[in-house]
Amino acid sequence: MQTRTVSELLSQKIAIAEVDIKGWVRTFRANRFIALNDGSTINNIQCVVDFENTEEIILKRITTGAAVHIKGELVESLGKGQNVEIIVKNIEILGDSDPETYPIQPKKHSFEFLRENAHLRTRTSTFSAVMRLRSALSFAIHSYFNENGFYYVNTPIITGSDAEGAGEMFRVSSLDAKKPPLTKDGQIDYSQDFFGKETNLTVSGQLEAETYAMSLGKVYTFGPTFRAENSNTSRHLAEFWMIEPEVAFMDLAGNMDLAESFLKYIIKYILDNNREDLDFLNQRLLDEEKTKPQAERSEMSLIEKLNFVTENNFTRLSYTEAIGILRDSTPNKKKKFKYIIDEWGTDLQSEHERFLVEKHFKCPVILYDYPANIKAFYMRLNEDGKTVRAMDILFPGIGEIVGGAQREERLDVLKKKMAALNIPEEDLWWYLDLRKYGTAVHSGFGLGFERLVMFATGMSNIRDVIPFPRTPQNAEF
Amino acid sequence: MQTRTVSELLSQKIAIAEVDIKGWVRTFRANRFIALNDGSTINNIQCVVDFENTEEIILKRITTGAAVHIKGELVESLGKGQNVEIIVKNIEILGDSDPETYPIQPKKHSFEFLRENAHLRTRTSTFSAVMRLRSALSFAIHSYFNENGFYYVNTPIITGSDAEGAGEMFRVSSLDAKKPPLTKDGQIDYSQDFFGKETNLTVSGQLEAETYAMSLGKVYTFGPTFRAENSNTSRHLAEFWMIEPEVAFMDLAGNMDLAESFLKYIIKYILDNNREDLDFLNQRLLDEEKTKPQAERSEMSLIEKLNFVTENNFTRLSYTEAIGILRDSTPNKKKKFKYIIDEWGTDLQSEHERFLVEKHFKCPVILYDYPANIKAFYMRLNEDGKTVRAMDILFPGIGEIVGGAQREERLDVLKKKMAALNIPEEDLWWYLDLRKYGTAVHSGFGLGFERLVMFATGMSNIRDVIPFPRTPQNAEF
Repeated sequence: MQTRTVSELLSQKIAIAEVDIKGWVRTFRANRFIALNDGSTINNIQCVVDFENTEEIILKRITTGAAVHIKGELVESLGKGQNVEIIVKNIEILGDSDPETYPIQPKKHSFEFLRENAHLRTRTSTFSAVMRLRSALSFAIHSYFNENGFYYVNTPIITGSDAEGAGEMFRVSSLDAKKPPLTKDGQIDYSQDFFGKETNLTVSGQLEAETYAMSLGKVYTFGPTFRAENSNTSRHLAEFWMIEPEVAFMDLAGNMDLAESFLKYIIKYILDNNREDLDFLNQRLLDEEKTKPQAERSEMSLIEKLNFVTENNFTRLSYTEAIGILRDSTPNKKKKFKYIIDEWGTDLQSEHERFLVEKHFKCPVILYDYPANIKAFYMRLNEDGKTVRAMDILFPGIGEIVGGAQREERLDVLKKKMAALNIPEEDLWWYLDLRKYGTAVHSGFGLGFERLVMFATGMSNIRDVIPFPRTPQNAEF
Repeated sequence: MQTRTVSELLSQKIAIAEVDIKGWVRTFRANRFIALNDGSTINNIQCVVDFENTEEIILKRITTGAAVHIKGELVESLGKGQNVEIIVKNIEILGDSDPETYPIQPKKHSFEFLRENAHLRTRTSTFSAVMRLRSALSFAIHSYFNENGFYYVNTPIITGSDAEGAGEMFRVSSLDAKKPPLTKDGQIDYSQDFFGKETNLTVSGQLEAETYAMSLGKVYTFGPTFRAENSNTSRHLAEFWMIEPEVAFMDLAGNMDLAESFLKYIIKYILDNNREDLDFLNQRLLDEEKTKPQAERSEMSLIEKLNFVTENNFTRLSYTEAIGILRDSTPNKKKKFKYIIDEWGTDLQSEHERFLVEKHFKCPVILYDYPANIKAFYMRLNEDGKTVRAMDILFPGIGEIVGGAQREERLDVLKKKMAALNIPEEDLWWYLDLRKYGTAVHSGFGLGFERLVMFATGMSNIRDVIPFPRTPQNAEF
């Protein structure tokens, strides 16, 4: 007989049938009711044990976390909370789970405790829902790009250049750590290292993705990126995944259209395909909110936030317009902002971004045309000579979720900006080649995948949306 | 007017229409015929310039590699080689390409030269076809797993353990490279490093994937892995991508079924969806073969090899049976093998694997139940005490493409094997937990993505199937 999944059985149309199933015991109640889960869905299937005709020694081994193989009959359930249940004919214990020592008890655990047991935390409903959603979002991303004629590019993880300047980098080396070879003038002799030069972990695949956009047209990356920054916050990881589309012949307006269409598609995908996991997390957040004072509660539930993104057009306004709105806003005048906005050119903080989205416009917002000096060297300089064709997308609860730009396609302008920032041309000879041979307008953006998963699941700590988080002082598992 | 892609126009049903298109000039022939490509397909669209009514200065700038914006009329083509062509009404040069210095000339370049220009090599037909196929294979992989109830897991890239023992690792560090802090006894003080311990780049996500299989049921990884081995061959990369599915409650037979179904699906996917690129590469190989002596030519063309995989059942036999066949084989008796097979227990070489697939069985082969001492510690020991439930899948032309196993699920047996190999239990406490709490039979396999892309494209050097290869002495771009 074919072994079935819980998901298959719960959606079974035929009410009565012989079934064969394997999974893990979530709870065992009244020596009779097993709540069985196999990861295929957030829901457990109830398996009813005939305890009078089951050996005592077996009953004792039906404990939370045990792996079991059950054969029985799928019947309509008379109890509340499920349509079908399994009348157990035969139960085999595949793997015991000592209830005295098993870390995942059938009770609420703190997220901090579960982080220390990250190898077992997807055995809880919350983390299994989060990680199924993470997987679904990933598939939605690949599907969107595939449907729209993009090619997936694997840009290098180990890189020889620190040109992007997005942050501190991790060094990758095979040299003897204690006694590295030195050059005559006492510097480390990286010519003897594995790659013959100093290498680091990438902070972004954008520059390499541009080379592919300028030949294949529409491309995207989706891979790990790294920051060696000592940021011990709930929003930073040393290792995180990033999505970076890049499109030839697309200007900043096209870039905004792409990002809006993309974000709506992937959020709609999980609303359509992962409703049970979302409903569970929605309820979890509502329950959590109840314990908070009224003033601190969110105005929107998780599902409402997701619908908010799919149903609203994103409002587009320039950085300059945004500064005007913020300067004249009540929280700015009443000095409720931590960082008061008083002049053009200042970088926006999360509080300003959230004010624009949640209070002022009440819809997702795209800001564009930022001051050149707060953005990266490769962004297209506007004719005003002081702003660049950058754009950031702001979401409720989270602030910036996407950052992108039209790229500087003019060789002379790019060289001048690099010179001003002391970026040696020989480090980026290949990047400059794109402007030498068949250059054209092109644009792209970056989306931090974990920020998206946080938004989509309502989890408030980024360590809880990646399987094994890498943070300062932590590389366990 | 909407800008169209070459792919859209070439598949256009409406024969005559005003069109607007942007792309790069591949060739410009007789001051009249532009072959225009935009990466959306291997095919160029022919754009016919009215040279008598076009300024001389513009005509001179229509050079190989230049980016152009063309407006014109799509008409049926009377010339050979295309059904439609564009009568150019207006041409704008977006980005020039100096024919004197542009590296990608309209002629055959050596692959070695193109590797040095990896940022431009997808502007050639061969590399654009290879990279479109790489992208399509990647999407096919995600689609297969999504359709079959698997969840995608991002296992960590930076890892604190070298337990898997799959190969030499790259060290990841933020310590001062020249003067790292030392402990009292003169060792490097990794407690002061970013993660508070020594860390490396992962060689495999399998062990972490097992933790997710033992809660979510069916999972897979698809991410970069690393080997710091000084192997300067056409089959090795220091950075490559790997796919590793892992399934709870699945034994070795199920693992073989999964791998066979998976490989057939993804190969069939590109045969169904990427025929133009495959046909081009097929012809490229046929042309290349013609320059070789008869004896060195392949028996199968690229397309035939792909069909060979989708149309044949994979033959399954034990390592022991394979040794018998190889020992009695003609090349073994006539000492044509470089490594003569004379006793049970020896590891098979590529020449033996290819003999089994190409000469003996003439179909893909799955070997299983290998000697324990040539396989990894985590593989399930058979009752004979000397073989493990490992399996390798062998393909024509390439030899081993997949390696997998049923995992040792018995805590006591696993601990004994780790002790014998001096793997400290405290390094893998979390891996052992899976055997302590709800253990069950489970299995998985690993597929090197670039090996698959080589097989699917017929490329013979692994550096030509990844955008920016990382090899000893090379981390350019």
